[in-house]
Amino acid sequence: MIPWGAASDRPPVIHPRHRSDAPGSLIVALFVQKFGGSSVADAESIKRVAKRIVDTRRAGHDVVVAVSAMGDTTDELLDLAGQVAPIPAPRELDMLLSSGERISMALLAMAIHSMGFEARSFTGSQAGMITDATHGAARIVDVTPVRLREALDEGAIVIVAGFQGFNRDTRDITTLGRGGSDTTAVALAAALKADVCEIYSDVDGIFTADPRVVPRAQKLTHVSSEEMLELAANGAKVLYIRAVEYARRHGVLIHARSTFSSGEGTWVLGPGMSLPAGTEGAEMEEPIVAGVATDLSQAKITVIGVPDVPGKAAEIFKIVAKSGANVDMIVQNVSAAATGRTDISFTLPKEDAALALRALAAEQGEVGFESLVHDDQIGKLSVVGAGMRTHSGVSATLFEALSVSGINIEMISTSEIRISVVVSGDELAEAARVVHTAYGLDGDAEAVVHAGTGR
Amino acid sequence: MIPWGAASDRPPVIHPRHRSDAPGSLIVALFVQKFGGSSVADAESIKRVAKRIVDTRRAGHDVVVAVSAMGDTTDELLDLAGQVAPIPAPRELDMLLSSGERISMALLAMAIHSMGFEARSFTGSQAGMITDATHGAARIVDVTPVRLREALDEGAIVIVAGFQGFNRDTRDITTLGRGGSDTTAVALAAALKADVCEIYSDVDGIFTADPRVVPRAQKLTHVSSEEMLELAANGAKVLYIRAVEYARRHGVLIHARSTFSSGEGTWVLGPGMSLPAGTEGAEMEEPIVAGVATDLSQAKITVIGVPDVPGKAAEIFKIVAKSGANVDMIVQNVSAAATGRTDISFTLPKEDAALALRALAAEQGEVGFESLVHDDQIGKLSVVGAGMRTHSGVSATLFEALSVSGINIEMISTSEIRISVVVSGDELAEAARVVHTAYGLDGDAEAVVHAGTGR
Repeated sequence: MIPWGAASDRPPVIHPRHRSDAPGSLIVALFVQKFGGSSVADAESIKRVAKRIVDTRRAGHDVVVAVSAMGDTTDELLDLAGQVAPIPAPRELDMLLSSGERISMALLAMAIHSMGFEARSFTGSQAGMITDATHGAARIVDVTPVRLREALDEGAIVIVAGFQGFNRDTRDITTLGRGGSDTTAVALAAALKADVCEIYSDVDGIFTADPRVVPRAQKLTHVSSEEMLELAANGAKVLYIRAVEYARRHGVLIHARSTFSSGEGTWVLGPGMSLPAGTEGAEMEEPIVAGVATDLSQAKITVIGVPDVPGKAAEIFKIVAKSGANVDMIVQNVSAAATGRTDISFTLPKEDAALALRALAAEQGEVGFESLVHDDQIGKLSVVGAGMRTHSGVSATLFEALSVSGINIEMISTSEIRISVVVSGDELAEAARVVHTAYGLDGDAEAVVHAGTGR
Repeated sequence: MIPWGAASDRPPVIHPRHRSDAPGSLIVALFVQKFGGSSVADAESIKRVAKRIVDTRRAGHDVVVAVSAMGDTTDELLDLAGQVAPIPAPRELDMLLSSGERISMALLAMAIHSMGFEARSFTGSQAGMITDATHGAARIVDVTPVRLREALDEGAIVIVAGFQGFNRDTRDITTLGRGGSDTTAVALAAALKADVCEIYSDVDGIFTADPRVVPRAQKLTHVSSEEMLELAANGAKVLYIRAVEYARRHGVLIHARSTFSSGEGTWVLGPGMSLPAGTEGAEMEEPIVAGVATDLSQAKITVIGVPDVPGKAAEIFKIVAKSGANVDMIVQNVSAAATGRTDISFTLPKEDAALALRALAAEQGEVGFESLVHDDQIGKLSVVGAGMRTHSGVSATLFEALSVSGINIEMISTSEIRISVVVSGDELAEAARVVHTAYGLDGDAEAVVHAGTGR
């Protein structure tokens, strides 16, 4: 299991440095590697990950690792918290949850140590992960990895607790919220000017579609960060939007790959970045469409019989926004001249629907609409590709493919590099397959889906 | 469950301070309370402990709590460590183990918070628990509880992680080793000039003997710290020697009591300390004997046929010491004039016996003894009492009681306030009962033994 094929004959490229004591290779790279909870779920997995890290070190590179809590630790701790306090104090909840990564990082450091390599673990505060004081969803405001640099200079492998930080004013421990460990890894890579930030998970990389939905989906050699953002925002699970945004802003090269195979994953390229020299497919021409994302997590609300007068839409969405619901797509049908009324549909996360419906119903008289229709059996399909900017007819291909297979489109929305349609939830999988084929994304073989996929 | 009966009518005494905002009582005391792992084993226990702490706060007092890891957490973490590394790196082991108290203290703070009281948890380093760099058995070198003072001044209940500290030079987390949380509590009490350090456990206090061995054992109202040290050193389990020593050195008043009852426990008085005013039994005359300790953890080794020439004993115990074994009692029999040889017996912890035997056997030719006899079925009984200094005939009572019941004494050793004898292990319990009776220590009723006792 040597990282990216043979690291020695395929050196990473962005900030190569010389180091005399690097065996087998003159160019030393700094790798940041992130391992999620499922990769360190038990002692065996931790030893596997340790071997993986040691292999990178053996190839002569510096390694900084960001690690999540073991398996379901975080959920178990949350459950305990719920048992002692209905609404746990946020400061204490962060103190509690931050212990999960301390366990995994200490075990990982021990495992590496027992393989004969110096390894040191650091908490978020020891690593200089400075955040604001928002417990449970802290934003990183600064990274001062002084101790990490010292450890690296002393030849140690550095293990950092993902997901956690430290606020300078309150001197309290904070956590970064959902996808926090990915963000930790990218932030460390940026602060340490790492050559690459490897995000390990139980899938091989970014696919042209979810292999569990589209068996002929292919792994992408690379994807632009703007495409990745659209894919993630529209249902792709492999990377968290926040981490990709951070990487894009700070020029961090992300390599999304699998803990369970040594093959290459998918490179996420920010503006002006190119693939490491010699990476297969580096010369390939950009495809028009990068991938097809599917999302079953949304519901649709239609406000029927809205008086077709200026300002009504604004009125409706002010109400929805006040309810705390997060609106995604919006479509207003053409007004039926006879009635002078129109229908307005929008999508939002299933869990927000109840809130929005209650808020709207309360204002029905005020707004003057006739009724509300709620549909939580919808599916959203999105086609993403930077090529859309320069190629016409991309949407036509989509609509053609769906109509041929008799799939009805309920809503449409587009961005500069994305077309999304809402279809019936039970037709989403078939829609994804036919669209995937229509854009010529099908692979020759069926993609291998790992046991752990989707965890 | 109001601490020591009714705190309002029985104020603690050592450093009373005035505080206007203390409801129901003008004198505000600072309580340090320590709760062990079995007291916070699960959500229910944590809530019970939280209520206990809140009751002290309600009585108008300041409270600082030192808490251990939940139930078997520490053992489970050690087990995990063993699975990933045969010999875990000490620095990482401390990082790992220190997470246990973070979990319990955060949960405890949440529970208190949800009862409507401000509570804040602090790690060893946040609490200013400065130690040397000896991982796994760090010594406290300084306590700088700046943040704790701030929190107290802001009216918060302070929860501190027991067992852990921080080294200034390495900036690494350390742990204090066995009994660490007791030491944390006493050290905090000393640094904060607390009025009392309450060590909660699942027994009612210090007894004149182990109630599981001597049913008529009585709870002591108070015991001097020097007596407590002898009792702890000779088998009594309730308090750790290290904590008692620290308390004695720094003038901390310890109150050993039960988490499961609101009754008073046992006061451990250092030099010059007196019982809080109004404490029952404060006027009682000092008994000659404080208690009877029993210990089944030792083994006896007899070196037979040692040439009765000067320096042989020294030779033998130099060998034993080099083996790392910890010798307790030593007895040299009178030399048999005929042979010019003598026997030397000594006791040591069962787990050290193998080492010592191997070391001695290796040097048999050198020392010139005839053989080695190993007996791990011995029991050690110790009678402890400061009154021995001034009263004669204390040992006579002991020997008399044992001979009357036909219990053979194998070894004898004494200190200024202690007499210890070694008997056959299977006779230890009976020996303890007859001696307990002989010194008039029997109570009228049998002591209640809690379910949790001995955990």
